[in-house]
Amino acid sequence: MKCAIGLDYGTNSVRCVIVDTADGRELGTCVYEYPTGEAGILLDPADHNLARQNPADYLRGTEVTVAGAIAAARQAEPAFDPRDIVGIGVDTTGSTPLPVDRNGTALAMLDAFKNNPNAHAWLWKDHTGYAEAAEITALARAERPQYLAKCGGTYSSEWFFSKILHCLRADPAVFDAAYTWVEHADWLPAVLTGTDNPDRLRRCRCAAGHKAMASDAWGGYPDAEFLGKLDPKLGALRGTLSNETFVIDQAAGRLTEPWAARLGLSAGIPVAMGAFDAHLGAVGSGIRSGVLVKIIGTSTCDMVVAPNDAALADVPGICGIVDGSILPGYFGLEAGQSAVGDIFNWFVNYLQPGGKEAGSHAALTEKAARLKPGQSGLLALDWNNGNRTILVDQRLTGLLLGQTLHTRPEEIYRALVEATAFGALTIINRFEEYGVKIDQIVNCGGIAEKNAMLMQIYADVTGREMKISRSAQTCALGSAVAAAVGGGAHPDFAQAQTAMCGIKETTFKPIAAHHKVYKQLYKLYKKLHDGFGIQGKVLGMGSIMKELLAIKEKANA
Amino acid sequence: MKCAIGLDYGTNSVRCVIVDTADGRELGTCVYEYPTGEAGILLDPADHNLARQNPADYLRGTEVTVAGAIAAARQAEPAFDPRDIVGIGVDTTGSTPLPVDRNGTALAMLDAFKNNPNAHAWLWKDHTGYAEAAEITALARAERPQYLAKCGGTYSSEWFFSKILHCLRADPAVFDAAYTWVEHADWLPAVLTGTDNPDRLRRCRCAAGHKAMASDAWGGYPDAEFLGKLDPKLGALRGTLSNETFVIDQAAGRLTEPWAARLGLSAGIPVAMGAFDAHLGAVGSGIRSGVLVKIIGTSTCDMVVAPNDAALADVPGICGIVDGSILPGYFGLEAGQSAVGDIFNWFVNYLQPGGKEAGSHAALTEKAARLKPGQSGLLALDWNNGNRTILVDQRLTGLLLGQTLHTRPEEIYRALVEATAFGALTIINRFEEYGVKIDQIVNCGGIAEKNAMLMQIYADVTGREMKISRSAQTCALGSAVAAAVGGGAHPDFAQAQTAMCGIKETTFKPIAAHHKVYKQLYKLYKKLHDGFGIQGKVLGMGSIMKELLAIKEKANA
Repeated sequence: MKCAIGLDYGTNSVRCVIVDTADGRELGTCVYEYPTGEAGILLDPADHNLARQNPADYLRGTEVTVAGAIAAARQAEPAFDPRDIVGIGVDTTGSTPLPVDRNGTALAMLDAFKNNPNAHAWLWKDHTGYAEAAEITALARAERPQYLAKCGGTYSSEWFFSKILHCLRADPAVFDAAYTWVEHADWLPAVLTGTDNPDRLRRCRCAAGHKAMASDAWGGYPDAEFLGKLDPKLGALRGTLSNETFVIDQAAGRLTEPWAARLGLSAGIPVAMGAFDAHLGAVGSGIRSGVLVKIIGTSTCDMVVAPNDAALADVPGICGIVDGSILPGYFGLEAGQSAVGDIFNWFVNYLQPGGKEAGSHAALTEKAARLKPGQSGLLALDWNNGNRTILVDQRLTGLLLGQTLHTRPEEIYRALVEATAFGALTIINRFEEYGVKIDQIVNCGGIAEKNAMLMQIYADVTGREMKISRSAQTCALGSAVAAAVGGGAHPDFAQAQTAMCGIKETTFKPIAAHHKVYKQLYKLYKKLHDGFGIQGKVLGMGSIMKELLAIKEKANA
Repeated sequence: MKCAIGLDYGTNSVRCVIVDTADGRELGTCVYEYPTGEAGILLDPADHNLARQNPADYLRGTEVTVAGAIAAARQAEPAFDPRDIVGIGVDTTGSTPLPVDRNGTALAMLDAFKNNPNAHAWLWKDHTGYAEAAEITALARAERPQYLAKCGGTYSSEWFFSKILHCLRADPAVFDAAYTWVEHADWLPAVLTGTDNPDRLRRCRCAAGHKAMASDAWGGYPDAEFLGKLDPKLGALRGTLSNETFVIDQAAGRLTEPWAARLGLSAGIPVAMGAFDAHLGAVGSGIRSGVLVKIIGTSTCDMVVAPNDAALADVPGICGIVDGSILPGYFGLEAGQSAVGDIFNWFVNYLQPGGKEAGSHAALTEKAARLKPGQSGLLALDWNNGNRTILVDQRLTGLLLGQTLHTRPEEIYRALVEATAFGALTIINRFEEYGVKIDQIVNCGGIAEKNAMLMQIYADVTGREMKISRSAQTCALGSAVAAAVGGGAHPDFAQAQTAMCGIKETTFKPIAAHHKVYKQLYKLYKKLHDGFGIQGKVLGMGSIMKELLAIKEKANA
């Protein structure tokens, strides 16, 4: 029996899963909720852009969840022995960089900085660097357009250099105390493999390529001259960033004795190069050419691969096109929506219509599911956290339109779900407009698995069948796939995926009558999308409310 | 001691007030909630446009409240004797027409029709006739532009002929059974004065002029040829409508013996011509040239008068300009917002954020009052029930923009209040653009009286001082003023108002720093207003969300 460990560091918790490499069976799993902040996130009530995490939570979570998963695996499978584990794979959120000192220690774990949010990990959804993102975009547009071509034409406030540059401006003491900045996805394997010298740390292609404008075409990360024009100190930081980056079929290193002892595993087993959760989630969902994998969580990632020997046009507004970022030998294309589950959570947790019980996800979903497409007369934009794809603009906000004096909470809830579906369709359309054909959609993540109404709406809005990944924890499973390949259980990713990944029997097929209504609504959504999202775009909005009322009346007739 | 009775038939209840004509002191008052339907309104869950009332509730409410007010007056003032009452004044909502038979009996009170909502009173906010309103507007534009010039250029679905024509189309059995249709404001005085022959019934200038395109300039109501083009049966109905209309300084008739006995009053006292609640509310608030009276309730009416010997341009988008509709000898100008309190009620009753307690008006107001202008980053349109002035378009709906993942209920509540303030400012600006100068604003209605936050926001948004009418029941007081003049207690309205009406000491003055922020926000509101409200208007919306974020960040700094 050969087993693999997948460690999945999410937005609110870390999960460990132990997988049988022969068939993908999940022998044991354990989740640890980050204790710091609000659901694991440090917030600032005065600045909704700020979102940080405590790296100590990552380490403690590793110990707790590996032990828990081993105990669970023993329970489920008496024959299981931790020595069966052939490798560890790691995925994290991103871009979630953290400042580290000369020894690779996170500044947040030093007494001097432990209470300073700027010294913590800057979580993917931190948007404090929006001004710096605009500055980087402007400079790159003028001087290094090639940098932007691979990341959708706009550098995001969610990404590596926006965050670091903002720290440099907002809190120079933290910036100056840092030797370098490391992605969570690189820091964790470095810790487990004892890579305490940041100069020797291997940085993953996934993070570097998608979020930090790194490419082999220009020798890795952006050049020091370019970064130096943003700030000389940022130029100097370039020296601490490697020219080479690594893909998940390579190892970050081998598990150290101390960590092996701490985790109850064999020392020396390989720890695979880390990657972002969505990228390994795509692997765990069986991604291959023509398959769009949608990881639907607080936000959404939409992942596609294309053979890296094919000519591929740059796709405007797509977060990134990076060779090897998802599967070795393929271009990884990443798109996404800045908030999906987070929008529903906002409605449920902040507005809580009718109180805790009446305003729960379950209660609202049950009522919303009974509504017909168009029946509410509502239309929303899914921009409460900005728009990642295709507008690449965090300085956008939510919009709800069509309210009457009788609009009910479940109607708004459904309109928010529909808005995210329209956003999803906009991404699919953009891929296909630029020649990336999508002939299958596989969804994963808790929402995809649990919310049949949402999946049916996605099918009805897009006019495509929605499939669901078999595993409930595809990101962790993808990490385990990388661990299995690294540990020699399978010769390559295609064979590992065939053995370990799969699709659920139940799928969601579009209902023609619903799709027809949603096609009308999508036209109106697209008008709002372009009108509010594209600078200088001038559109007539005067008919939107009337068209919505006409659709509503038809649906009610 | 000379007293007057004011009867005020509102949207959800009827109120009777007995007033000392010497000083306006309210000796006794009594309210009766209409028992039929939801808060007195018959609704149709499948059609949010429908809103009807049971005329039997009006009659029962008259008996209950007059008796209650007399009892209260006796309690408050031992010297009071019901024989001191010199007259009765009546105000009602409108346009609220009801079908009556040859004997003036409301069809809804006949067994054959008692369960048919179409045979009931069509409440002012019933919008089922929106298609007919568009048809009437189109025909009038083509053939009788003069009809529209006095009512803002567009005939509304809230008005007399839209409702009657819709009934003719939707339920011909009801239309055919009706001898004629009578405004609630005319029907009630007719009942009290025994005018059981609809041909002898006096119709008031206020309803006929504002809602039914009547004017002395063309011999009263629209001509039969015009109405016949909409439908021959509507043309025939014209024969049941009088050519002459009457102003509140005239009597509808005298109280009959049976009604005097039923109400405990002296038979033969004059019942003044009725008028709409807002018009008599303006009288009760002391309206005169230069004073804008805002009656803030579920919806808002904005009333202005101008001497009828002055040259006055037609004001586009203003609901009506009618000689004598408010005060004899003055043009009455009526504008308004289709929903104000109703929007806050919708938020509280339908969304109920956080549950009943946390989501109450009081709890939300308390939190919202602590927010600074612009701080929420939200902007709303106040169109949940359409837009009465200046767009005259019921086919408009609500809009909320600027939501993040942190937007709180009190921020939305405040944004809705601000939206109604921006709507109010749009009306003031329209009056002044067309030469109707406003040098004082007097507010009345429960919201104006109770919600200091709202009044301060109105002051801050408009940059004008907000005064509050002294009486808590200005509509009823205005009716009592008409009763006092009719009953000979005062020689004219100016003297009656001076004696009986007044202003509260506390007023709300604009805060310069707030007004500055609201000026910025109003520009954005106006862009949304014009972009979504004016057909064919083409505007760039791409900067709105960013400008709101910038204002928000400045407010939070």
